[in-house]
Amino acid sequence: MGPIFEELFMDPSGLARLGRLHTCHGAIDTPCFMPVGTQAAVKALSPEDLKECGAQIILGNTYHLYLRPGHRLIEELGGLHSFMSWDRPILTDSGGFQVFSLAGFRKIEEEGAVFRSHIDGSYRRLTPELAIEIQEALGSDIMMCLDTCIPYPVDEKDAAEATALTSRWAARCKAAKRRKELHLFGIIQGGMSRQLRQKSAEDLIEIGFNGYALGGLSVGEPKEMLFEMVETTRPLIPKRHPVYLMGVGAPEDLVECVSRGIDMFDCVMPTRNARNGMLFTSSGRIVIKNACFQRDPGPIDPCCGCYACRNYSRAYLRHLFMAKELLAYRLLSIHNIHYYLSLMKEIRGAIKKGCLEAWRQAFYRKREELCSGHQ
Amino acid sequence: MGPIFEELFMDPSGLARLGRLHTCHGAIDTPCFMPVGTQAAVKALSPEDLKECGAQIILGNTYHLYLRPGHRLIEELGGLHSFMSWDRPILTDSGGFQVFSLAGFRKIEEEGAVFRSHIDGSYRRLTPELAIEIQEALGSDIMMCLDTCIPYPVDEKDAAEATALTSRWAARCKAAKRRKELHLFGIIQGGMSRQLRQKSAEDLIEIGFNGYALGGLSVGEPKEMLFEMVETTRPLIPKRHPVYLMGVGAPEDLVECVSRGIDMFDCVMPTRNARNGMLFTSSGRIVIKNACFQRDPGPIDPCCGCYACRNYSRAYLRHLFMAKELLAYRLLSIHNIHYYLSLMKEIRGAIKKGCLEAWRQAFYRKREELCSGHQ
Repeated sequence: MGPIFEELFMDPSGLARLGRLHTCHGAIDTPCFMPVGTQAAVKALSPEDLKECGAQIILGNTYHLYLRPGHRLIEELGGLHSFMSWDRPILTDSGGFQVFSLAGFRKIEEEGAVFRSHIDGSYRRLTPELAIEIQEALGSDIMMCLDTCIPYPVDEKDAAEATALTSRWAARCKAAKRRKELHLFGIIQGGMSRQLRQKSAEDLIEIGFNGYALGGLSVGEPKEMLFEMVETTRPLIPKRHPVYLMGVGAPEDLVECVSRGIDMFDCVMPTRNARNGMLFTSSGRIVIKNACFQRDPGPIDPCCGCYACRNYSRAYLRHLFMAKELLAYRLLSIHNIHYYLSLMKEIRGAIKKGCLEAWRQAFYRKREELCSGHQ
Repeated sequence: MGPIFEELFMDPSGLARLGRLHTCHGAIDTPCFMPVGTQAAVKALSPEDLKECGAQIILGNTYHLYLRPGHRLIEELGGLHSFMSWDRPILTDSGGFQVFSLAGFRKIEEEGAVFRSHIDGSYRRLTPELAIEIQEALGSDIMMCLDTCIPYPVDEKDAAEATALTSRWAARCKAAKRRKELHLFGIIQGGMSRQLRQKSAEDLIEIGFNGYALGGLSVGEPKEMLFEMVETTRPLIPKRHPVYLMGVGAPEDLVECVSRGIDMFDCVMPTRNARNGMLFTSSGRIVIKNACFQRDPGPIDPCCGCYACRNYSRAYLRHLFMAKELLAYRLLSIHNIHYYLSLMKEIRGAIKKGCLEAWRQAFYRKREELCSGHQ
């Protein structure tokens, strides 16, 4: 088997890069964005919708699938790909972030995280070994180590302890891994401390993973801090590995972080915002329920080629949204996912041509020029 | 222009028949079932979903579209077909039944129906002339006359008055019609009285419409009474006209009423039941949330070729439904609509072969044989 990640083209900046990530279910072009399919479905979308939008890989949530319907049930039914009828790569997170953000009660112990299920209130213990067991049962192409999330702000001592525990759990995750064909990524923690981030990266690189993620970012810190953490941590990771920035972010964040060397992204923003009627367009964001769209015969974005923009007017989509028609959520989600995936495709094209910086400036200029007219 | 309706083949029974109904947006094979697209969308489904299920025609609700987004807005945007991106025939009801069933307040006057909108509480008056104006603005291929619905049970005098008013309103609807290319159907009322039904049919036939509907049925009366009304009213309508039984019904009702000479049906049952997790199969009904489907790797119905049955297990669909994933509502609605439309296609095939009665017996036998195993 060849290397799991190939760096195909490096931008003149020396940071942004075009790559290819190989998995059991095929290769992924990077930089890439992964739509989030929390409960074995990307909300409101079918696999065909996702493919038409250009999705190469999606993300599943270990925490949710463990609680419902359960990883053993999914395994019995042939694994997550077969269960949800998706034949392209899947990355699953480890559940660490959801324990942190969703569970009604949580206690972090050396052995693992004890928490109360947000579904039925039952007490559960998620250990590094169980996180791997679940992800192997799901048949995830890219598994993530169980990590401990650090709130923001946090005191240095707590951050240091949580970061050290994440390293110990990472070693246990690697030891627990049985299925050689699946990839395992380590998650670099460290809060907003450069020193802790560096220590975390060194620990994980020493253990050795197929790829590395930056976790615990976009948790309420100022944007400059996020960029600083990416800028200072990214260079510590050897070039032969893909680097994944977890849970980030807005389109601008993707543009900025690709320029800082990130290869992979995921975020609920495109689908969640769609369900709230907020749409991304080449000229900025629009809120479909606004009265100005009531009689608007144009598509969401005249520059967009998605199914929703090819077939429906803003007036119709606004009507569906106001009437709470289920079709609205699907059409708006298709548009936003298409926007994100097209953005990444454009970015890859710009890197290939060696003109990412010029593309980036044009991206912002276009929004400035057009934005005011559509808000 | 030729006749709007052609009777192509008469079943040996002399009642069930195969026909073709011509409209501006193409021809429809009858007997047919019309999925209900109340608010300019069949709930959870796209036009492509509907076409893949075999839909030839859909129904829109005048009452809903008048209140939101308004018929003038839809007209501005090119009419209902263009607005919702559906290029096949559309039938719209007149709003009479919704005023009766949905409005917070209603008063029937000679001039029209005064009611309070269920959306914003505003007082509105729907007259026969306005019902036609709305439907012509929508560009409906088949418009319905405004009628007054009769509750069940009702005293004879009220039923007689409402039926007479329906006839006077029907004459006003015909007089108000401007767009020659659109069809207009009269609605036969009369409650559960044979005599009133006969009077209503005679009145409407004398006014003269492109087709005739039986309204005010399936409103809580015993099934035998519904069949009796169909049996006694149907023969009064000349063979050159299509006959539409409004708001009916369950699959068995369709089978029974085709055998009694009905050409067209509509009902929210397939889509509404799908959203509640109740599915129609060749061996009876199933409730997808039942625990027995938790680990079931099979499709909803092994005899079904719909998108949901081709791609997903009962276990997956149950999971989506339990997790309230939006994709569930779409997939289950696709299945139920496909079931209804396939049933009508089978019925047409059986009529063409002259074996509807044998087909009907097999339909019931199959359900009896298989039903118990799946409930």
